Amino acid sequence: MPVNLVAPDPKSLLPVAGVALGVAEANIRKPNRKDLLVIRLDDGAKVAGVFTQNRFCAAPVVVTRQHLSMLDPAASIRALVVNTGNANAGTGKDGLGHARQTCAGLAELLGCTSVQVLPFSTGVIMEPLPVERITAGLPACIADLRADNWYRAAQAIMTTDTLPKATSSQAKIGNATVTITGIAKGAGMIHPNMATMLGFVATDARVSLPLLKGAVAHAAKHAFNCITVDGDTSTNDAFMLIASGKAGMDELGDAHSPDFVALRDAITEVATRLAQAIVRDGEGATKFIAIRVEGGRSEDECRKIGFAIAHSPLVKTAFFASDPNLGRILAATGNAGVTDLDVEKIELYLDDVLVARHGGRNPDYQEADGQRVMKQSEITVRVVLNRGGSSAVLWTCDMSHDYVSINADYRS
Amino acid sequence: MPVNLVAPDPKSLLPVAGVALGVAEANIRKPNRKDLLVIRLDDGAKVAGVFTQNRFCAAPVVVTRQHLSMLDPAASIRALVVNTGNANAGTGKDGLGHARQTCAGLAELLGCTSVQVLPFSTGVIMEPLPVERITAGLPACIADLRADNWYRAAQAIMTTDTLPKATSSQAKIGNATVTITGIAKGAGMIHPNMATMLGFVATDARVSLPLLKGAVAHAAKHAFNCITVDGDTSTNDAFMLIASGKAGMDELGDAHSPDFVALRDAITEVATRLAQAIVRDGEGATKFIAIRVEGGRSEDECRKIGFAIAHSPLVKTAFFASDPNLGRILAATGNAGVTDLDVEKIELYLDDVLVARHGGRNPDYQEADGQRVMKQSEITVRVVLNRGGSSAVLWTCDMSHDYVSINADYRS
Repeated sequence: MPVNLVAPDPKSLLPVAGVALGVAEANIRKPNRKDLLVIRLDDGAKVAGVFTQNRFCAAPVVVTRQHLSMLDPAASIRALVVNTGNANAGTGKDGLGHARQTCAGLAELLGCTSVQVLPFSTGVIMEPLPVERITAGLPACIADLRADNWYRAAQAIMTTDTLPKATSSQAKIGNATVTITGIAKGAGMIHPNMATMLGFVATDARVSLPLLKGAVAHAAKHAFNCITVDGDTSTNDAFMLIASGKAGMDELGDAHSPDFVALRDAITEVATRLAQAIVRDGEGATKFIAIRVEGGRSEDECRKIGFAIAHSPLVKTAFFASDPNLGRILAATGNAGVTDLDVEKIELYLDDVLVARHGGRNPDYQEADGQRVMKQSEITVRVVLNRGGSSAVLWTCDMSHDYVSINADYRS
Repeated sequence: MPVNLVAPDPKSLLPVAGVALGVAEANIRKPNRKDLLVIRLDDGAKVAGVFTQNRFCAAPVVVTRQHLSMLDPAASIRALVVNTGNANAGTGKDGLGHARQTCAGLAELLGCTSVQVLPFSTGVIMEPLPVERITAGLPACIADLRADNWYRAAQAIMTTDTLPKATSSQAKIGNATVTITGIAKGAGMIHPNMATMLGFVATDARVSLPLLKGAVAHAAKHAFNCITVDGDTSTNDAFMLIASGKAGMDELGDAHSPDFVALRDAITEVATRLAQAIVRDGEGATKFIAIRVEGGRSEDECRKIGFAIAHSPLVKTAFFASDPNLGRILAATGNAGVTDLDVEKIELYLDDVLVARHGGRNPDYQEADGQRVMKQSEITVRVVLNRGGSSAVLWTCDMSHDYVSINADYRS
């Protein structure tokens, strides 16, 4: 059961001019489920992405990067193709061949070159990709292409997700109103490092490619790179940002202009909603936990401490039990690798409750207050380091019996 | 249920001349359980230790370090005192006072100074230590002091352990036969960094203090620092090595002498048995897993990769399910932070079964072979990097429903 997450209202998902989506049931791993998605872009769209830092990066990630770098500057990306059920990772040279075969098949149907197609996969690792089923399913995706298909697209990329993840936003950029719509998938193997799992965000804004790359990096850093479910970085993480350029506006080309900053922030807000939806739907999650680390010397040390807390199985199981066993949070803080940390200076809050200070329990702390907060489904842990002016916020979930069940049964 | 671990035969635990142990039921957290241990040393014993690197290190660890450094060279440590039920960690200045009060109480009973007593605690974090119960329990420990009390001592330091952990060994050093006997506790919050949880090993060998320090560091590195249950480094880790000097032999003073190396290796063997017993009794463990990483450029990178595999919740739950979902091991390998790793060169074995090579599945690999190995209660994962001559071996366990249950219920 996801934490305070509902399926988006399909009508709330705004079409993005120049972007059409089509899905199909291609029987890639299991029958009777949408498992193939094509996102077709009109000519002239710009695309930028960030990818997993895992050294075992999946074949489609390798091919997507190659295609983005090989693309003739006069040409544009015409389609993205996404399959679930099989990650095409840990599949060696055959996997690269299968990813390229997928692109070639779609390029032929769309009348473009292979390089103009970007492939994405998610699912089981180290199984051969059933590429024939994918190419056989592509015509059905093409037949299904529609601008108002974002909800079904979000469904088609789900694996262990219990709900589709999609959101829309509009922003006023100069005199134009631009639309931003995105989808994402992910519930486990979530500890993004540059990007998470799969996220696709499209806007009709007109923006130069360098600025689009800046926007995708910014949104990844402040949204997807701030979440963790289990500390495992996937082989297939990719977060893609599409700008179709169909909005009636001049192209944004100045990274410091208020218009670009407004667009970038609107995109980051959409990415944040998607990232938080992934945590809310975290495998076995029963609680949504924000971890704010403040007063650090650098953002980096704040993130280090935040992730040490967010990754600790002992902290996560204590949240599952609603047990204010808060010494575990102190232990994780001391364990984050910040070697000159002065524990005497640290304050620990659960929401508004001051739990610990001066290296020990706050004398005024009442277990009943901790218990009250721990029973909530949304909790903020605040660690104040009192040694500088930097801060960071991360989002995570608890660890339950169901996390073990889901991951012990995933393949069977 | 621990993995292939039984309680030691009390008769197999050899007394160490110059070392007596006494236990008591002091009602520190729960009634009717042994929760207090005194280890009394004859005059002239040498003691060295390694301790947790957690910045929130517990009050008794701070005091033990102080006492070791403050000790008059002409004097010797006369006692160690260990309580369970309360870690005296995250307890600020009061905690330091309580640890010192414990030492003072025991020093008075033994007729020595406080500095000659070393305190250790394990149990719940961030609760005030009930020091009056400890001092009230000390006379019963004194009355119970016996050289052949190692089994009951191992029982007295248990927390979530299901079985006591103790072992003995004898080694021929020159013409003397020396005895080495040790006990340890630990089942969760296990990812030692310098030392683990609590381990106490005593020998009657005569050895200089610098060499004793070398031996404790060596044994920690090759035994306790090679295990992990859940990746959480405790606030209270301590591994203490005692040399009573009662064996009829000249004092060892040369770190390169064959006699010292033989003693050091015998101590390391005892420490390894204790460390492996901790993993076998890991919270909720159903499988004992050795992870060998070979062919690395440095031992450090081999350990990094080994721990990335050993800490991955996805790998650990796959072992619990006996599911040869081995892509998760490749993903964890790629995720270890060895940024120039060439995944094309890596071979992955499960026991003798070659699972993956050249960045993908071994064409000859049969799922049935992987399944056969995964069903065993003892499994060796071997990752061959093929880029150098270094290697490392670590020991860990799987992650089961019971891990979550134990840690969600630990305080209640």
